[in-house]
Amino acid sequence: MKALIYRGPGKKEWAEKAKPALLKSTDAIVRITHTTICGTDLHILKGDVPEVEAGRTLGHEGVGVIEEVGEAVGNFKKGDRVLISCITSCGRCEYCKKRLYAHCTDGGWILGHLIDGTQAEYVRIPHADNSLYPAPEGVDPEALVMLSDILPTGFEIGVLYGQVQPSDTVAIVGAGPIGMAVLLTAQFYSPSRIIMVDTDPARLEVSRRFGATDTVDASDGKAVEAVMALTGGKGVDVAVEAVGIPATFDTCQSIIAPGGHIANVGVHGKPVELHLEKLWIKNITLTTGLVCTHSTPMLLQTVASGKVKPEQLVTHRFALDDVIQAYEVFSNAAREKAMKVVLKAG
Amino acid sequence: MKALIYRGPGKKEWAEKAKPALLKSTDAIVRITHTTICGTDLHILKGDVPEVEAGRTLGHEGVGVIEEVGEAVGNFKKGDRVLISCITSCGRCEYCKKRLYAHCTDGGWILGHLIDGTQAEYVRIPHADNSLYPAPEGVDPEALVMLSDILPTGFEIGVLYGQVQPSDTVAIVGAGPIGMAVLLTAQFYSPSRIIMVDTDPARLEVSRRFGATDTVDASDGKAVEAVMALTGGKGVDVAVEAVGIPATFDTCQSIIAPGGHIANVGVHGKPVELHLEKLWIKNITLTTGLVCTHSTPMLLQTVASGKVKPEQLVTHRFALDDVIQAYEVFSNAAREKAMKVVLKAG
Repeated sequence: MKALIYRGPGKKEWAEKAKPALLKSTDAIVRITHTTICGTDLHILKGDVPEVEAGRTLGHEGVGVIEEVGEAVGNFKKGDRVLISCITSCGRCEYCKKRLYAHCTDGGWILGHLIDGTQAEYVRIPHADNSLYPAPEGVDPEALVMLSDILPTGFEIGVLYGQVQPSDTVAIVGAGPIGMAVLLTAQFYSPSRIIMVDTDPARLEVSRRFGATDTVDASDGKAVEAVMALTGGKGVDVAVEAVGIPATFDTCQSIIAPGGHIANVGVHGKPVELHLEKLWIKNITLTTGLVCTHSTPMLLQTVASGKVKPEQLVTHRFALDDVIQAYEVFSNAAREKAMKVVLKAG
Repeated sequence: MKALIYRGPGKKEWAEKAKPALLKSTDAIVRITHTTICGTDLHILKGDVPEVEAGRTLGHEGVGVIEEVGEAVGNFKKGDRVLISCITSCGRCEYCKKRLYAHCTDGGWILGHLIDGTQAEYVRIPHADNSLYPAPEGVDPEALVMLSDILPTGFEIGVLYGQVQPSDTVAIVGAGPIGMAVLLTAQFYSPSRIIMVDTDPARLEVSRRFGATDTVDASDGKAVEAVMALTGGKGVDVAVEAVGIPATFDTCQSIIAPGGHIANVGVHGKPVELHLEKLWIKNITLTTGLVCTHSTPMLLQTVASGKVKPEQLVTHRFALDDVIQAYEVFSNAAREKAMKVVLKAG
């Protein structure tokens, strides 16, 4: 089969590789029909995630059809259409029993990281009963593949951890795919205002179409002043960090109202300065986390019912064979006005 | 009357001052029977709280008897025994209606800060109906005065914000009066282990008497390793920061388990380094806050029923006239083995 293989920092190749086989009785083999590229894949390619070994197939998002299941798999059979979760979970360890699947002692984020991933014609999924979900009838596979990672990440780590409530004022700092997933799912809880903050006017324009009530162009370095002005000097009830750098984290801690919630969704590569000398007295809550995908069944229902339309995030489509070209576009997202790119097999 | 007057950094005086009078119809005048000294008073005396003006009477904790009430006060009358809350609250602003009394737009922490405080023979209490509590019959006033600040601070900002649950492993970093208040009130929720961390063996010994299951002497700089060893490498479910310096905050972020809660209770004077490069993936919750004292009625009940005995925290007693000597002892708490010092009037 063909797979997108990491060859070490800066190097990748769409090349032949052995088709995966069942290794344990709880595994399934899935034929990929749709996959996509995540910002994390770009980090891996830069060499920022050193535990990824050369030779690894990348990708942790996908939709496909069951090709084969191990004898212990009970929820799926050959031919079933499935959504692949970015998080593999055994369902029986201490963390799984707390629904902290991200910290599963025999799983977590391993696809395209510690084991071969989804940017390939076939993928092996460990603990298939807990790591796959049946694809609902009639749902656009482009919508479905957004549920492998970004929709649950935005929802769980941004909206649920941020405790968005009806009437809240929410600021989302970062209008990339994850920020947009926060924007789409925050609306489940009817906040009165959603302020989108980014440096890219095109992305801010998209965010208005997706439901942002206000936008702040941060390119002049005055995002904090702008958000404070929009909120009458009070700050926001919920600030979602959806970039992963010190500057955007700093914006969040500067705009949070007393009693507010900062939900960090961004993946950070270095420490940040936390202004406890100002925040100790403000009764704020700060949360972090890797998605656990415990919300996936709920999100599948919201997509099936049309309450949320994550396929709106898809800006570009390629054949799986053209994955190298897709990476080129996704790596230049601002220039290409790209949000999510979908790769379709066969 | 006599009052403990701040005369600028490093200077204080027990001196004559005009007895306070009602300024608004919602005020009460309270004759102090018991007061105490807080670490915050020492910070003010060092000049760390510049908004405190010379001439200010210090103190924000007290128990007393109503001397006079304004015509709008409905809950109290002359002669009533009352507990004074460290937090003044109007009960009608946006923040009061969220029970965020610390952020009351016409109150908050103002006693001994922005208006004259409780280390005096009399004190004026604004918004008396919301800022005073009836003293339950038969409760030791030394227990009561612990409910002005430290018991609700430890409970609300440490235990409630930290979401201590039955069976949890809790670490309390800092075995001063606030850490001890966390220790006493955490036991309401039946954690399986409470690990007390401090550099003072005498305070650790006291904490064992108060219910700590384990103690870690941090004076060798290896507190993190010790806590991780005690928890089999997992870390703790709840870490409470009860000191207010970068080193103890750092201990908390190093010992927190995936999915855990860090409750910052300490008052910080400078920023800390937050290791988001490690914590972004750990699904942790970090909280901060000034006490709101919304738990005071509940805590009064627990004290009245004997469920918690905050009078255990009192190590030294002085006549109010000897307040200068009491400060001397409290300022040398380690040498004097002092926890809380109570000043009794008349």
